[in-house]
This record gives sequence, C-alpha cells and structure tokens, in this order.
Amino acid sequence: MNYSFIRWIVGWVLCVEAAFLLIPLTLCLCFGEPYAVDYIIAISVTAIPGVAMAFRRPKNQSFYAREGFIATALSWIVMSAAGALPFFISGCIPKFVDALFEVVSGFTTTGASILANVEAMPRSMLFWRSFTHWIGGMGVLVFLLALLPMTGGQSILIMRAESPGPSVGKLVPRLRQTAVFLYGIYLGMTLLEVVALLLGRLDLFSAFCISFGTAGTGGFGILNDSFASYSVYVQTVVTIFMFAFGVNFNFYFFLIIKKFRAALAMEEVKGYLFIFITAVVLVAANLMLQGGAAPGYAILHASFQCSSIMTTTGFSSVDFDLWPTFSKTVLICLMFVGACAGSTGGGIKVSRILMYFKSIGRELRRLIHPRSVTVVRMDSKALESRMIHSVNSWLLAYAAVFFFSMLMISLDNFDFTTNFSAVAATLNNIGPGLNLVGPTRNFADYSAFSKLVLMFDMLAGRLEIFPMLLMLRPATWRR
Amino acid sequence: MNYSFIRWIVGWVLCVEAAFLLIPLTLCLCFGEPYAVDYIIAISVTAIPGVAMAFRRPKNQSFYAREGFIATALSWIVMSAAGALPFFISGCIPKFVDALFEVVSGFTTTGASILANVEAMPRSMLFWRSFTHWIGGMGVLVFLLALLPMTGGQSILIMRAESPGPSVGKLVPRLRQTAVFLYGIYLGMTLLEVVALLLGRLDLFSAFCISFGTAGTGGFGILNDSFASYSVYVQTVVTIFMFAFGVNFNFYFFLIIKKFRAALAMEEVKGYLFIFITAVVLVAANLMLQGGAAPGYAILHASFQCSSIMTTTGFSSVDFDLWPTFSKTVLICLMFVGACAGSTGGGIKVSRILMYFKSIGRELRRLIHPRSVTVVRMDSKALESRMIHSVNSWLLAYAAVFFFSMLMISLDNFDFTTNFSAVAATLNNIGPGLNLVGPTRNFADYSAFSKLVLMFDMLAGRLEIFPMLLMLRPATWRR
Repeated sequence: MNYSFIRWIVGWVLCVEAAFLLIPLTLCLCFGEPYAVDYIIAISVTAIPGVAMAFRRPKNQSFYAREGFIATALSWIVMSAAGALPFFISGCIPKFVDALFEVVSGFTTTGASILANVEAMPRSMLFWRSFTHWIGGMGVLVFLLALLPMTGGQSILIMRAESPGPSVGKLVPRLRQTAVFLYGIYLGMTLLEVVALLLGRLDLFSAFCISFGTAGTGGFGILNDSFASYSVYVQTVVTIFMFAFGVNFNFYFFLIIKKFRAALAMEEVKGYLFIFITAVVLVAANLMLQGGAAPGYAILHASFQCSSIMTTTGFSSVDFDLWPTFSKTVLICLMFVGACAGSTGGGIKVSRILMYFKSIGRELRRLIHPRSVTVVRMDSKALESRMIHSVNSWLLAYAAVFFFSMLMISLDNFDFTTNFSAVAATLNNIGPGLNLVGPTRNFADYSAFSKLVLMFDMLAGRLEIFPMLLMLRPATWRR
Repeated sequence: MNYSFIRWIVGWVLCVEAAFLLIPLTLCLCFGEPYAVDYIIAISVTAIPGVAMAFRRPKNQSFYAREGFIATALSWIVMSAAGALPFFISGCIPKFVDALFEVVSGFTTTGASILANVEAMPRSMLFWRSFTHWIGGMGVLVFLLALLPMTGGQSILIMRAESPGPSVGKLVPRLRQTAVFLYGIYLGMTLLEVVALLLGRLDLFSAFCISFGTAGTGGFGILNDSFASYSVYVQTVVTIFMFAFGVNFNFYFFLIIKKFRAALAMEEVKGYLFIFITAVVLVAANLMLQGGAAPGYAILHASFQCSSIMTTTGFSSVDFDLWPTFSKTVLICLMFVGACAGSTGGGIKVSRILMYFKSIGRELRRLIHPRSVTVVRMDSKALESRMIHSVNSWLLAYAAVFFFSMLMISLDNFDFTTNFSAVAATLNNIGPGLNLVGPTRNFADYSAFSKLVLMFDMLAGRLEIFPMLLMLRPATWRR
C-alpha cells in the first residue's frame, strides 16, 4: 500500500476544501454575521494539516486499485469532518455528531437533516450547507483530477472509485480533459438553473442554494417546508432540472460533440425516461382516484415528487407521507431505482436495474434451453461475464449493508417503517423517508450510534458500497 | 412442448389428491360431522378429470426442462383449486377466493390464514388444512416420483422444479429410490414428533395436526392463539422439531448411511446452526434488556420464535408484534434467510446466503487484485460460474417479484409495514407478518386482487420463483 500517495491526495482534498470555505467566510462578512472568527479557525484547522500533507509530493507515484479506493474513502471521511467544523465551532449545531451528520449528508448529496428549524440558521451557514451538495455531486476527487497533474496514468482508478455507476469511461482520451469537461457541463447547467430561478423572482441567495441542491441531487432546502411555499413556476423549473441532473452526463457530452444519434440510442437514458413517466402516471392517477386530488395538483406534485425521489434529490413540495399507500410504495420503489449512472444521483442506478432485468430474462431462457449460449447486451454491446458478476455482487453487498444497518438502528426502538425508510433514504442518498423521518420531520431523534450507522450508509451509497466495505476489511490495509 | 405429458402428470396429481381426500372424509364420518356428501362431491370433482387425464399414458415420454417447470407449476395450481373444494362446497369458507388462499397457503407450507376463528372449524376440515402442509412440504411430485415408473430418465427435471434450494442432487443413483428415501425420512420424523407430543399429553388429533404443520414447516395451528396456550414441554418439542425439519435432508441421509464426517462437514448446516444461535442470543438479550422480560421467558420464546420464523413455519408462542423493534427486525431478517436448501422450509435458503457472502468477499478481493483468479468454494468444491450466475439471477427475480407484489397490494391502502411483511411472509412461506397481518391477525381484510397476488407469491416462494415466472412468459408456451 502506497501510504504516502494516499497522504498526498487527502492533503490536497483538505487544501481544496479550505479554499472552498473562503466563500461562506466572504458571505459571512457581507451579511455581517458574527461568525468570521469561527470560519477562520475552521479554515486554519483544515488548511494547516492539508498543506503539510500535500506539500511533499510522494516519490513513488505508482498506485493501484487498492490505493484508489482507500484514498477516496478516506478523503470523503476527512473532508466531512473538516466541513462540519464551521457548524460546530460557531455553535450553530451544538453537537459534533449532528454537525458531522449534516455535512456527510451534504457531501454525499443525501439531504437528510437533523435540523428542525432550517430558517433559524445563519445564511452563510445555509450557503455552505447547500454548497456541500454541489461539491459532493460531481465529486471532489474528480475536481482534483481536473486540477492536479498526475503522472501515474492510473488516475482513472480514483475516478472509478468516486463516480456513480457500474462502469466509468473516459469521455475523451485524456482523463484530466474528461474531468474538466464534466465540471464544465455541471457548472453550465447549474448556472442555467440559477438564471431560470431568478426569472421566477427568487433572490440570488435562494437561487444559488436551490441550484446547488438540485445540481448535486442533494435536497437541502432553505425553508422549513422545503418546496411547498414556492410558486408553481419555481416548482416546475426545479422538477425539470432535478430530472436533467439525473441523466447520465455522457448524454450531454454526446449532445455537445453533436453525436445526436449516439445520445438518443443510450439505453439507460431511455429506461430512465420510461420509468419516470410510468411512475408519474401511476402516482398522478392514484392521487386522483384514491386521494381525491384535482388533476392539476396531482400532475404537478406527482412530477415533482417522482423527479425528486428518483434522482434521489429529496426536495418535497408536499408531505407525501400523507399520500395513499400505493403512491408511497411507488416512491419507495423509485428510491431504490435511483438515477442514471454517471449522473449526480444515487440509488441502484437505472443501468444496473436494466442489467438485472436482462439477467432474469437470460436465466429464464437458459432454464428452458440449458445448452444455448445467451448474451446480455447493453447499448448493443455484449456485456462481459466479469462485469455481470460485479454488478450482481454489488447488489448483494448493497442488500447486506441494508439489512445490517436496519438491524443496528432498530436498537433505538422506532417503528419498522421509520427504520426501513431511514436506511433506504440514506443508503440511496435521498434524504427524507417516511413516518418519523418523513418530509416534515428530521433525523435528530436517532441516537448518536444510529447516526454513525446512517452516515456510513450515506458514504457507502455515494461511493457505491465497495470503497467503504474495503475500509472495514483488515486485509486491505496490509502492506 | 409435450402437452400430453403435462396432461398425464397433472392427471396423476389429481388422482393422488383425491386419494388423500379420503382421509378427512373418513375422519368426518368418525367425528359424525355433517359434511360427508361435500367431501364426496369434492373427491369426485377431483378424481374424475384426474383419472381421465392420467388414464392414457403419453406415447412420447421425452420431456425437457420446460415441461418439468410447467408440469410442476400447473400441478400446484390445479392441486390447490381441488384442495379448496371441501372448504367451499361445505360452506365452511364461504368465498372461493378465501378457500383457495387457505389451501395455497397450506400446500405451499406458508400458513397465512384468512380465518379469524380457527376453533370454529370442523375437525376434519382442520385436519385437511394441516395435512396440506404435510403433502406440500416434501412435494406431491416427489411423491409421484416415488410412485410412478418413468422411463424418460429425465424425471430429475421435475424434482428440480419442485424441490427447494439452488441444487438438487440424487442421494442414490436411482431417482425413484431417492424419492422413497426422502419420504421415508420425512414420515419417520413426523411420527417421532407425534409420539413426543403424545408424551406431552396432547390428544392424537392435535398431535397429528401439529406434527403436519411442523414437518412441512407450514404453520397452520388448530387453536386461535397458535401456540401460546400449550405447555412449555410442547413448545420445546415443537421448537426442536421445527429446527430439525429446516435442516437439509441430505444431512439425515448421511447420518443414516453412517457417513458422519460428511454430515458434520456440511457448510450449510453449520451456517444454519450459527445463524440460529446468533439470532436466539440477540433476541433473548434484547427481550431482557429492552423488553424487561425474565430470562426463562426470553430464552423459551426467543428460541421458539426464531426457530419458527427461520424455518418459515410461522407458529407463534407469543404476539411478537409487541416485541421491541430490534427483536422484530431480527425476525424479519430471519424471514429472508430461511431454512436450508433440501429441507421443507422456504426463504432464500442458507446455502444461497452463504454463496452471496462468498461472492461479496470474492468481489472485494478482485477489486484489489483485478488479475487474480478467485474461486468460490462450497463444501470444499469450487462452484461453477454458471451456478453462481444462476443463484444471483434467482435473487434478482426474487427482488423483482417482491417489489411488484408490494406495489400491487398497496392499492388496498394498508400501511407500509403491513404490506411489506405480508409479501415477506408469503413469498418466504412463513405465514404471519406484522401489524394488520401480525400473529394475532389474519389476511382476510385484503381484497380478492391482493389475495391473488399473495397466492402467486406463495407459489413462487414454494417453487423457487422461476417455474411461476416461466408460466407468465408467452415464449414458454410456444410449441
């Protein structure tokens, strides 16, 4: 294990984060909030070890999959601890475990909160809280890759450990260029949303915070009722942008380089659209027929909520915990499906779901024709058996983490629906669940132990399970 | 597709069932119940088409996997419809869908009931109800295999479609002999339990009904409070026998032929014991620490309930819905784990669970050493990649059936916990769930549509998903 390389990466992550923290510090000064000293302490505590660790470039720059996973997992943990400092030092969130929960939830773009009264928070803190979504959405290591010249040529291993989805390809031959491209698309779409929201007469601060939450498919809001009191225009804009950030970014890349045919042929994007439309139709129909809702209300909120849950954003325009059970069950299914691979969304990912259904189909064919050679195709390419294995093992690990987490948090003696939806909402990086962790409630009541379990789940969800499991495996750490 | 062969098999199944129905008819006459005519009608309606279909042996006896699956699935459906007749014709269960639900639940050894007052049922009906567990536990087609001389030599395909678990081996070279052996062990152990219960001063009728429910890991009781009012002795005997019927029958076969070393080396049996003991310790500790229970109570009921749920029997000695959430969550996990393959129990099966954990371990090793060759072993034998694929696809199909079922029954607008546990309890062939379908409640309130969905789940659970999915696939039926 190349420890000095990992040290170097983690150091750089801290430096970048310290730089990012200058933004809320500036806002704090602009708004005249009394937390400047707290920010400066937090920045110092982040920057000093960061610079010390990043200063000396490791002699041995060769690294392998193991270093990629561990550097990624450690970076995310360290980055969360540092990000929690402003909340904790300022006393805005008095307990460190709560501050950490909030920031892990931010970086992992979960949006699960322990705050009962968001509106009481200082605005610079709210900005930092939403900004963590934006940083976490595309990934801080991807950002680093765009910044740092790496000689190893193996930096794809880091990108692979941090990016959502079963397979990560380079868009362009040079990885650094790919990272720049991705961040370019990401930034462009975010700014587009800011403009769209400003046209809806939102102030600049709200427009930015909401756009960060949408872009990262995070879900932190700045009002206590999340999105219920915004205008229909704002709700519609956000519905569209949530959906757009859940699309595989390769799709936009194809559009930019004018490969329209390739873009439209992407099976995952078609599947994503199909599942979304089906869900909206089912929920809207159910709200009208069983819930007695008016058609306008049903379509608006069904679209908003399906878009929010499927992309794992977690904004809520209504208290969907009051909806009929069928609608809630559709939302729970969407929680697990999640967005596209290569987007900022979480969940199992549409591409995996497609592969799973194809695997079932193949097994049925094989049972009947045991000697036939059957191939699973995706985007007209045959999938390697190694890949299918890996995607299947991922689901097994996911299920194992799910059950063990539920078991551990059930010690708090909350009801089954609460626990089930709390794990589903954190492991899939959504945010709100049902019952005691429903859209109008929060995660504050869980014990510190349960909060740690749920933080693990958020990180496991964002980093796609394996990096976090590898951290727990003693054999990984052997030299 | 060899339709005449399928016709022949289904006919034989009906004939066997008609013969079995003579037993409750006899009891009806002994007890002086006024349902003799109803039984005779039911037997005629079963036997006449049965004889007609089984009379002419098909010329073409060659059949393949497809015929094996379809013959099995159809046999189970037809057998359930016929088995429901006594309840329906006699008016003991006035609605046919309810009578069908009860019998599907019986044959699939689920034990989910729509009866609120079991004690009001005539005794011959209660006997038939419990006897369906016994028939379904080992499988009526396995029974047929023991009975019918088949020339095809492919009858393993039928046994494979009906027997629980990922792989079915012949115990002895001749399949017919294997079937006889299995039924021998099954009958022997059942009679042993009857004797043990008689020693506990139960009457013969109760001893037989309870033993049938235990042997098939079914769960139908003959008292309204299931097992709460039986003596500690009876509860202990049943705990032990439930556990014993959840063991892979190969284990007993090895014991009988004195291959003790092979028996003790069976990984699945060791895993089964390990999970069981862990669960009992966790639940007992939780009941004492959080539930304030006395040690004796905690150990007795933790053992009974873990044994009952893990083997997917579903008897209840207490209303475990009132237990702390942690204990309930352990039970829910056990619902999914299930018993050993090659036993009469349901669920995912311990052998699959072991393979899943080994698959995760292999994937973790592979991520770090991408070029290494890694093998998954079970009982010291390397598993074929084909087998691992198949076991994984099985879980995918299982999960898909689970989610679609939950979606469909959620139209009844019951709460999430009820729906989740109803599907878990039927797909895993357990019986009681939580909340509205908890141990003191029943499934009567679900709509007819939901009952049909849950019947599908029970059959899918008993026949290990694929035969039922193949039934739904149009391509299966093409000639």
